[in-house]
Amino acid sequence: MITFSDIEAARARIADRVFLSPLAASETLAKLTGTRLSLKLENLQMTGSFKERGACNKLSFLGPPERARGVVTASAGNHAQGVAHHATRLGIDSVVVMPEATPLIKVQSTQSLGAKVSLVGAGYDDAAEEATRIAERDGRVYVHPFDDELIMAGQGTIGLELLEQNPYLDAVVVSIGGGGLAAGVAVALKETNPKIKVYGVQTRAMPSMKHALTGDPALAGSSRTIADGIAVKRPGALTREVVARYVDDVVLVEEEEIAEAILVLLEREKTVAEGAGAAPLAALMNRRLPVDGRRVACVISGGNIDVNFMSRIIERGLVHRGRLMRLRVRLPDVAGALASLLSVVAATKANVVEVHHDRAFGTELGETWVELVLETRGFDHVDDVKAALTTAGAKLEVGARG
Amino acid sequence: MITFSDIEAARARIADRVFLSPLAASETLAKLTGTRLSLKLENLQMTGSFKERGACNKLSFLGPPERARGVVTASAGNHAQGVAHHATRLGIDSVVVMPEATPLIKVQSTQSLGAKVSLVGAGYDDAAEEATRIAERDGRVYVHPFDDELIMAGQGTIGLELLEQNPYLDAVVVSIGGGGLAAGVAVALKETNPKIKVYGVQTRAMPSMKHALTGDPALAGSSRTIADGIAVKRPGALTREVVARYVDDVVLVEEEEIAEAILVLLEREKTVAEGAGAAPLAALMNRRLPVDGRRVACVISGGNIDVNFMSRIIERGLVHRGRLMRLRVRLPDVAGALASLLSVVAATKANVVEVHHDRAFGTELGETWVELVLETRGFDHVDDVKAALTTAGAKLEVGARG
Repeated sequence: MITFSDIEAARARIADRVFLSPLAASETLAKLTGTRLSLKLENLQMTGSFKERGACNKLSFLGPPERARGVVTASAGNHAQGVAHHATRLGIDSVVVMPEATPLIKVQSTQSLGAKVSLVGAGYDDAAEEATRIAERDGRVYVHPFDDELIMAGQGTIGLELLEQNPYLDAVVVSIGGGGLAAGVAVALKETNPKIKVYGVQTRAMPSMKHALTGDPALAGSSRTIADGIAVKRPGALTREVVARYVDDVVLVEEEEIAEAILVLLEREKTVAEGAGAAPLAALMNRRLPVDGRRVACVISGGNIDVNFMSRIIERGLVHRGRLMRLRVRLPDVAGALASLLSVVAATKANVVEVHHDRAFGTELGETWVELVLETRGFDHVDDVKAALTTAGAKLEVGARG
Repeated sequence: MITFSDIEAARARIADRVFLSPLAASETLAKLTGTRLSLKLENLQMTGSFKERGACNKLSFLGPPERARGVVTASAGNHAQGVAHHATRLGIDSVVVMPEATPLIKVQSTQSLGAKVSLVGAGYDDAAEEATRIAERDGRVYVHPFDDELIMAGQGTIGLELLEQNPYLDAVVVSIGGGGLAAGVAVALKETNPKIKVYGVQTRAMPSMKHALTGDPALAGSSRTIADGIAVKRPGALTREVVARYVDDVVLVEEEEIAEAILVLLEREKTVAEGAGAAPLAALMNRRLPVDGRRVACVISGGNIDVNFMSRIIERGLVHRGRLMRLRVRLPDVAGALASLLSVVAATKANVVEVHHDRAFGTELGETWVELVLETRGFDHVDDVKAALTTAGAKLEVGARG
């Protein structure tokens, strides 16, 4: 099992090569979470996530003969970029195996950081198998994304920085996928000060570490998640041992809660987090952790979110907060009907985003469904709009959310 | 005219109350702009912009009798929040006059920071008139958003921080609306080291300071802009004098360029900038300034952008970069026509976002227009899609952009 000294050694190796990310206090989020909160902004790393730390430590540790053999890894995301970037800086040849469906933008980023990319298989497992095969065939050093002591120790340097940036922390919250980040940070903190609580956060869509720790059969399944950075079906064996020993609790958050946390970070903190990066804040916002009034650091582990996807997250989040509503109204299909409907909407100051007509399905002849998408100011406003329309005699059918 | 000492005095007044924002070097943007670039992240201020600096300086300067009278200002945006926040902290009663059409979210933020908000008039000019009237009637101190020496001196503290954070800067780029930021920063820098270039950036949609400086009649007009933070029709008289003396050049950027810069900051720097905050980067990205290879600091002045609007900016930006394309195809109105069209699209790996049919307007009977919105990977990909469709015999009509 890794120790504090491994992390100190990692720190010495990577200190000049990895950004000392700020630990920024946030008054707004402190109020929102009922804690004294600060954010460790790992999304500001050069490649957009903490993954560089482990990659840099592992690669820097390699001796000249291993470096000459080159490295290979499998990853569709942040680890790929971390390995590519630091391999190139150290003059090491790198190959990254990515699943075939990897968005081209991620392939291009990894290539532009200097790695050769090979697209193989339907998902991470296939890609990892291929990477292992390449390692054996070509004699390249395999760089595991989490289940490797040097990787864990590298991620653990975040713990040392936290201790220096705020020695009075009561608790630190990190997301868990494979468990490398949580393991490293927990060792750094607990071996320094066992009083500091360390909490892990997973998405309920893929609670693999919590399942491994508890054996709860209800947590055996997995589904799609917006937190692709922690979408790991099998946590590491090494990481699991450390997490079991040192992490005080692992809690789950819902997909909608993650989307909301991404939105809050964008809107209030002016910072871009990916799903995995926002999950710890989601746990705090929804009071999943016993940290009321305590000094808490929340690791925003990465910010690599596709802007297209961000735009959708914003819309999801707006719906979740009552700032976007959809409703269907049955109207007489005559001139002026839509105008009078919209004048009622206008009086409530809701802004019309979309209008669709549907005459063919499920209405009486001479009637039409009109679907409206409206910008609103919150659930009170949603209720106002509905009340105004009902008062005006409109026949409403309201969607799943408002 | 304000002097270096005024800015030093401002620094002493506000140092404990305003965040010392980081000056973050960016390798990615350095490449993109051909400079050695760093970003002064004023979007991380508590109220999301640099405006706090001037407001805090002005309010801290007031003596007990003036504080007891309370203050009033007019603003639809960042200045309102800066005044509200620091007035409340200093125990000063504040009134903010906002135009009637101000988005409720801005009204609420300002209220939640402790100000009384009064909604008056169609735009900033009406609101400012009302604020002056309130100042006279109630004896409140009027806090001008820019044309005030204490406000300018407060904004100038950014210049001092820049000099300390990187004493070797060759150039500093700031956006210009009323001119308070540019004037303060220029005095701080030029009175310390006249060799440092100071550049101002305006949007071509509202080039009022450049018009005032040059008298060029082609710059007399104004139109709507996404950079609402610098949408000022009449720059200050005091600020103009300083800008004329100390600012080396004022350049213009296009609306699309601002949208693109917002997107780059989100995507590459994981940071949220509003239009005014991204304008300096837009100028650098489009090589409007003679700073090739130089050490340049770019002030990201604010991040208060509505997330709904951000989502639209992302889409605009994606179109501008060829990552979203729209095309209209004339198809025979028969079963299977759409399927074969879409299979051609699928082979190019473009993702279908929207499909609309239009049978009634401008087609032959038996034909239909199909409008497709597609996610693409850039203009090369857009060209590939068009070529593939043309080769397959489709009758295309392509929109304004691709």
